[in-house]
Amino acid sequence: MLIRDATADDWPAVWPFFHRIVAAGETYPYALDMSAEQGREVWMPPPPDRTTVAIDDEGLIVGSAKMNANRQGNGDHVASASYMVDPDRHARGVGRALCEDSLRWARARGFLSMEFNAVVETNVHAVKLYESLGFRITGTQPRAFRHPAEGLVGLHCMHVDL
Amino acid sequence: MLIRDATADDWPAVWPFFHRIVAAGETYPYALDMSAEQGREVWMPPPPDRTTVAIDDEGLIVGSAKMNANRQGNGDHVASASYMVDPDRHARGVGRALCEDSLRWARARGFLSMEFNAVVETNVHAVKLYESLGFRITGTQPRAFRHPAEGLVGLHCMHVDL
Repeated sequence: MLIRDATADDWPAVWPFFHRIVAAGETYPYALDMSAEQGREVWMPPPPDRTTVAIDDEGLIVGSAKMNANRQGNGDHVASASYMVDPDRHARGVGRALCEDSLRWARARGFLSMEFNAVVETNVHAVKLYESLGFRITGTQPRAFRHPAEGLVGLHCMHVDL
Repeated sequence: MLIRDATADDWPAVWPFFHRIVAAGETYPYALDMSAEQGREVWMPPPPDRTTVAIDDEGLIVGSAKMNANRQGNGDHVASASYMVDPDRHARGVGRALCEDSLRWARARGFLSMEFNAVVETNVHAVKLYESLGFRITGTQPRAFRHPAEGLVGLHCMHVDL
């Protein structure tokens, strides 16, 4: 598994699984019908934000991460990140590798902590992964997400010091 | 106290106290050095978002609120709002009137709840006001805000059902 900075040329390989995950509407509060161009704007912001891709042993892009300051001004010492893993490649350590890399980036950039603002509480796999990397749930906004199968579920805020 | 929808013509009256509050850096994680044009983009987004102004008995604009869906897609049933009150006009019910109006708007628009993502914990006046209107703190992101006098302080998430 290789994690490297994404380039504009990577988007056509990221979009198919990004779109599949967004359209499923189970894990991110993004517009379900976003276009490839809107997706690119969301997922590949200009520096100092950063986007990475995960490359498997066959050279295929199997996941991607986006990382950035979570807020501006007097909140810009806290990082945030989002992760997308090709649903066909889950449970192969892709998410963990992307998350670990983003934590290294945030630490190297001098961020004091990393926060997630909206982790869907039914996304148990992600919550467990983040907790295994030191994150803890600091609170849950109740019924803040309409899961297509589970109905109204909460969105966790999570935090780790760097 | 009159609360009405803001128009583009209102921005020159809002900007002086908006700028003063943002530049003080005590209550919002906004870029401290934002220009009037950047401020207008942040504070006066196009519909369906909404911006209001509070007008006092002398016809002066003494506060403003911005309200919007807090997230997109399967999170767009939750509203959020932000409030700015002219520091010279505090404690005259301006903030309460703006907040009550935004809750009425959110209820009428069919939002199921309102959430705040980042209430600076040292902004005790605001926290008490929100709690008096039914909000409760659902969690606190620790040390997520650099208060110019208090140092690293937390950011509360707050929630009320509508």
